Amino acid sequence: MNKKRKIAVVITARPSYSRVKTALQAIQEHPDLELQLVVASSALLERYGSAVNYIEKDGFQIAAKVFNVLEGENLAAAAKTTGIGILELSTVFDNLKPDMVVTIADRFETMATAISATYMNIPLVHIQGGEITGNIDEKVRHSITKLADYHFVASQDAYERVIKLGEDPVTVFNTGCPSIDLADKVKQNPVLDFDPYKKYGGVGACPDLSKGYVVVMQHPVTNEYQDSRKHINETLYAIKDIGFPVLWFWPNVDAGADGTSAGIRAFREKYQTSHIHFFKNMEGEDFLKLLYNSKCLVGNSSVGIRECAYLGVPVVNIGSRQNKRARGENVMDVGYEGEAIAAAVQHFFHKGRPEPSHVYGGGDAGIQIARLLAQLPLRFHKTLNY
Amino acid sequence: MNKKRKIAVVITARPSYSRVKTALQAIQEHPDLELQLVVASSALLERYGSAVNYIEKDGFQIAAKVFNVLEGENLAAAAKTTGIGILELSTVFDNLKPDMVVTIADRFETMATAISATYMNIPLVHIQGGEITGNIDEKVRHSITKLADYHFVASQDAYERVIKLGEDPVTVFNTGCPSIDLADKVKQNPVLDFDPYKKYGGVGACPDLSKGYVVVMQHPVTNEYQDSRKHINETLYAIKDIGFPVLWFWPNVDAGADGTSAGIRAFREKYQTSHIHFFKNMEGEDFLKLLYNSKCLVGNSSVGIRECAYLGVPVVNIGSRQNKRARGENVMDVGYEGEAIAAAVQHFFHKGRPEPSHVYGGGDAGIQIARLLAQLPLRFHKTLNY
Amino acid sequence: MNKKRKIAVVITARPSYSRVKTALQAIQEHPDLELQLVVASSALLERYGSAVNYIEKDGFQIAAKVFNVLEGENLAAAAKTTGIGILELSTVFDNLKPDMVVTIADRFETMATAISATYMNIPLVHIQGGEITGNIDEKVRHSITKLADYHFVASQDAYERVIKLGEDPVTVFNTGCPSIDLADKVKQNPVLDFDPYKKYGGVGACPDLSKGYVVVMQHPVTNEYQDSRKHINETLYAIKDIGFPVLWFWPNVDAGADGTSAGIRAFREKYQTSHIHFFKNMEGEDFLKLLYNSKCLVGNSSVGIRECAYLGVPVVNIGSRQNKRARGENVMDVGYEGEAIAAAVQHFFHKGRPEPSHVYGGGDAGIQIARLLAQLPLRFHKTLNY
Amino acid sequence: MNKKRKIAVVITARPSYSRVKTALQAIQEHPDLELQLVVASSALLERYGSAVNYIEKDGFQIAAKVFNVLEGENLAAAAKTTGIGILELSTVFDNLKPDMVVTIADRFETMATAISATYMNIPLVHIQGGEITGNIDEKVRHSITKLADYHFVASQDAYERVIKLGEDPVTVFNTGCPSIDLADKVKQNPVLDFDPYKKYGGVGACPDLSKGYVVVMQHPVTNEYQDSRKHINETLYAIKDIGFPVLWFWPNVDAGADGTSAGIRAFREKYQTSHIHFFKNMEGEDFLKLLYNSKCLVGNSSVGIRECAYLGVPVVNIGSRQNKRARGENVMDVGYEGEAIAAAVQHFFHKGRPEPSHVYGGGDAGIQIARLLAQLPLRFHKTLNY
Repeated sequence: MNKKRKIAVVITARPSYSRVKTALQAIQEHPDLELQLVVASSALLERYGSAVNYIEKDGFQIAAKVFNVLEGENLAAAAKTTGIGILELSTVFDNLKPDMVVTIADRFETMATAISATYMNIPLVHIQGGEITGNIDEKVRHSITKLADYHFVASQDAYERVIKLGEDPVTVFNTGCPSIDLADKVKQNPVLDFDPYKKYGGVGACPDLSKGYVVVMQHPVTNEYQDSRKHINETLYAIKDIGFPVLWFWPNVDAGADGTSAGIRAFREKYQTSHIHFFKNMEGEDFLKLLYNSKCLVGNSSVGIRECAYLGVPVVNIGSRQNKRARGENVMDVGYEGEAIAAAVQHFFHKGRPEPSHVYGGGDAGIQIARLLAQLPLRFHKTLNY
Repeated sequence: MNKKRKIAVVITARPSYSRVKTALQAIQEHPDLELQLVVASSALLERYGSAVNYIEKDGFQIAAKVFNVLEGENLAAAAKTTGIGILELSTVFDNLKPDMVVTIADRFETMATAISATYMNIPLVHIQGGEITGNIDEKVRHSITKLADYHFVASQDAYERVIKLGEDPVTVFNTGCPSIDLADKVKQNPVLDFDPYKKYGGVGACPDLSKGYVVVMQHPVTNEYQDSRKHINETLYAIKDIGFPVLWFWPNVDAGADGTSAGIRAFREKYQTSHIHFFKNMEGEDFLKLLYNSKCLVGNSSVGIRECAYLGVPVVNIGSRQNKRARGENVMDVGYEGEAIAAAVQHFFHKGRPEPSHVYGGGDAGIQIARLLAQLPLRFHKTLNY
Repeated sequence: MNKKRKIAVVITARPSYSRVKTALQAIQEHPDLELQLVVASSALLERYGSAVNYIEKDGFQIAAKVFNVLEGENLAAAAKTTGIGILELSTVFDNLKPDMVVTIADRFETMATAISATYMNIPLVHIQGGEITGNIDEKVRHSITKLADYHFVASQDAYERVIKLGEDPVTVFNTGCPSIDLADKVKQNPVLDFDPYKKYGGVGACPDLSKGYVVVMQHPVTNEYQDSRKHINETLYAIKDIGFPVLWFWPNVDAGADGTSAGIRAFREKYQTSHIHFFKNMEGEDFLKLLYNSKCLVGNSSVGIRECAYLGVPVVNIGSRQNKRARGENVMDVGYEGEAIAAAVQHFFHKGRPEPSHVYGGGDAGIQIARLLAQLPLRFHKTLNY
Repeated sequence: MNKKRKIAVVITARPSYSRVKTALQAIQEHPDLELQLVVASSALLERYGSAVNYIEKDGFQIAAKVFNVLEGENLAAAAKTTGIGILELSTVFDNLKPDMVVTIADRFETMATAISATYMNIPLVHIQGGEITGNIDEKVRHSITKLADYHFVASQDAYERVIKLGEDPVTVFNTGCPSIDLADKVKQNPVLDFDPYKKYGGVGACPDLSKGYVVVMQHPVTNEYQDSRKHINETLYAIKDIGFPVLWFWPNVDAGADGTSAGIRAFREKYQTSHIHFFKNMEGEDFLKLLYNSKCLVGNSSVGIRECAYLGVPVVNIGSRQNKRARGENVMDVGYEGEAIAAAVQHFFHKGRPEPSHVYGGGDAGIQIARLLAQLPLRFHKTLNY
């Protein structure tokens, strides 16, 4: 009798969950795999959107929850959150005894997953390595690549880069990004068939969306910790008098999160705008529909680089966070300057949609990932080939 | 007025200390540098040789001690030791506020230093990256390379490899290994001018060393955790009836440490040999003198690959621990097989010394390292150049 | 030459700081004492009022900061925050090497201070033990009493109770509560000589305070974790249509903190009241002036039981948090019922001040505490005397 | 349908396991209870006797293992071990969701169990509170009493003391000590029906036991950390020339453990005695048989005070560790002085057995404990009744 392979996937943040949801489903449905879903860090916390609630609502069973976010408006807290994560995840892996561990992308806490699995001799799979962004996330991303035994990357660029980093080509697979799977589904039925105010609450004005609107999602950038409040202010003031509806999403946790959140709160106390609504979060599919029907996305979210390329949604990409990531024609890069941001938004608001691009895959990443997890040898030894 | 640059160096094990001692001295004596020596992990523990005592005896002031070794005969303990290390080192760095942090080599706990410094935006210097060994240490080593801002490597091979790993060549320096500095000093005055039994105690027989002797130092290999006792037994039984004096050194802490130590203890209880003496540890310089005057070194210590090459001491290198490391003519590789080990020792015992080799530098690594630390820009941003 | 005694005082929350401020000043000014102020937990966090800023502004030097608050809307987070606190404080005490450690009151994190000091054989002084409140704080409080070597209590009741708990009477001292020292100072000059809106910002309406106002400060109650949102709602709706100005202060961190905060935020989004202003925090002296000039205090803060007794300010004390604490004539107890709360506030708003009471000391607690710390034997052995 | 009550019992050391084994069996066999056995701290470690192996061999299923012993020859390590224990146990309790948690006695790590359960609102049962011993264990013991919701004490003395400490008499039960249950069983069949050398290995000489022998078990005393080596030396030299067989048991982990172990190791290296055998550990029943047939027990183990009283075995009780514990006629107290120890052993070796005493119960403690756990209300609120 064949025993199912136990695949532990650690989700640490709302965006990571959205990104790999189709892969989780494919793992769950695969006859030879057993999904062990571990939810950790900000994915558990209300003030970062309680991804855990969506996960449960989507019907996933959670094998373990790991609370490890240490509060503090300083960089040491990020390090310590990782340290606590290692302590906890080691216990979790010791109990779940997974055959493979999957870690996603490049947030600082994902390093905890990578270290626990590596040191416990559990084969480690890294999803979405090989990309370049030019900040601390990039250090973490490539560092995890060097710990990982298998690499499921999202683009041809990334594929080549991981191999240049010395990984054995037989361990690297360009599956595309599973987030595109969802975008593909949305593209086939893109009607905005729900009322976002009613379904997701949030605060602020409820402007009429029927004549077009803009979506904003801006995260703090770790390396620029002390500037996060200044940066968010530039965007806030660019948006303040923009003249058409704005749907604003709160940021994730990060070393500078409080600067960003504080900036938004201060703005809201000061101005009673009639065209901005603030959401804490939204289910992935609904969010993509909202984007699809928007005039443009403003901010520094990776969704602009990935899903929006596939959907053909214009993006005003602010600052350094997505620096150097492969991108389609839909992206306009601007600095942290209110005027430039406002001008870019105006431009897109009055212009047609760009062509879609397949730079991040073709919509079957989840299926590919599950198949690979079921078939790849369970190995955790490797050495440089140069 | 110029303020001195504060350089935090974290020592986690006895061998690392020996290896970088001349660099520490050069930092301490450099007019523009202030050394902040942090002693952590097994370097603090009696059963791994209390490196801390030697450090203090050598006149270094210790800025902070970090106890983070979690007991347990399992792999999770290694992960957790790293997690606790991150928690503690973050606090230490928050208090010491170093301008740069130096981490050494590739033990699992060195990752804690690398993560704390990286996440706290402190420029990270990695000593002895770029080498290949084919086990978990290699994963850790290259993973640290991807976090580090500067790389002081020990050989031309390593230099080229770190650059292939995508590091900017202006951040990579082949300083040679500082351990060779000490070997150079010993080479100029190699007389065994102390009585090892008297000076270092230890247990077991005290055979006459005047007609030649063999030194043994064998560490557990993390990936082969459950085999560590079997491996050590092969060596013990190869040595048991060897017929000439043997000086045996206890291993460092590691996931399999207890297997190795238990094997040695069991052997000692069972056999009352008259030709083996066991040492817990020895000061670096004395140890090199002992090696220089020995017939050969047996085991899997990196000292065989590095210092012994420079000193021209034959080495019976057992198993996979030093796999693929650049080596001189002095090394004979054997598997974990008692007979092969015994034969190799016999061979070397009756043969002349090999030629020395400069593969790991020319004896001025410490000075070079201090100079670089004083001059390099304090930066912690980087991105892949391919 | 006499060396000064090093006294480490660990502050974990804004109210504790206010409470012992005069003791800290007296320690700092005492010729035989050296104050080592450690600031930890929510005292460091912006969303709990950043007590650390006030501490620094008051001219105290901080010897160490300890970030240990683990985020999470569950009870395990409180336990883990304590665990991390022990890890960190042990390192801090190891570095500072205090002669005595002082822990204050009964918050769950204060247990971390008590355990670290006890296990490290440092004499432990507990301020404000012996009181009864009937919830988890009481368990923690008496548990710390059994670890502490000296007890500086705030009332005669508490004095007798600590001795009944088996503590040697020569180690128990009724110093009164140092918070009363500050209240005494305010009583001598009670004029509201600052504009609270200007000086402390905050959000909401800025009603005219000249014809009387009410102050609200309500904390979540740990044992009633899931009810904290319901409780705060009762108070919010009692206050909503009350007809005179209300100055509301945000709660401290606690297992239920998010429920309370979330309730307040939801209320603010829903209602645009013109008579409520929300403050994050206020310096102790200003806060006492504000209380002195108010019609009454509403909520469950201990300030109502202590300082308000001495100042003669009426208090509507809600729920179980101050249960069984010795109280003066100024307190009216009500349940978590909007109507009862509203009625009590109406009652006090139209009635004169009650008589002051000296149940918590006479205004010289800080001086007494410093004197005792300088003179008591440094001992950490004890045994039950029955 | 009735759901079984889940009872989590946390075992942190070999002696605690022996002590409560009959209670664990009774819980396991009780139709309304489900045992959740958590094994932690030194109970998992080989060098402290691997209690975990005996637990598994006895047929208990282990619900979770918690590695939390931090290595280090200092007092901070004890504190940190407790901190890590809290972190880990909180996760364990979060997963197991026990209805009650049982903590045993007074070792420093038992505080971790008490704090995790208390802060998570899980009713806490304390076994063997209320005793007095005059050292840090006593502080910990009474401190746990103040956190515990129920108290199962071992003697009438302890019963009265816990009530004096302010606990509600309806929550205090004198069950006797479950260790006596086992002693009772042994007493009914006391023949030494196994060869201890063959069954338990160990090291050293194997003297003939047929004409009488002495058992030694001496633990370090936390408060006297730096003296532990000196203390053990006094006992070692008292025993060295004693002239009849000695069976010596290694100590548990403690802040001073390394001092004690180091002393024993040094002694063994120096002297080749022909009358001393060293055991790492022994199953509880066999150990009691060994004691029953011995001339006396030497050291500071609580087994001398409890089981030996019931069995009528003489005890040379050294130093302060059992200070003030209620004791029978079988105990002779001596200081840390080789001569006094030697004289006491000589005295007992040539004298008859003392009368047994029932001071620690009548042999049905395990059954009583299980019954109470099944019936007591699940409450975690309490308040002082004076």
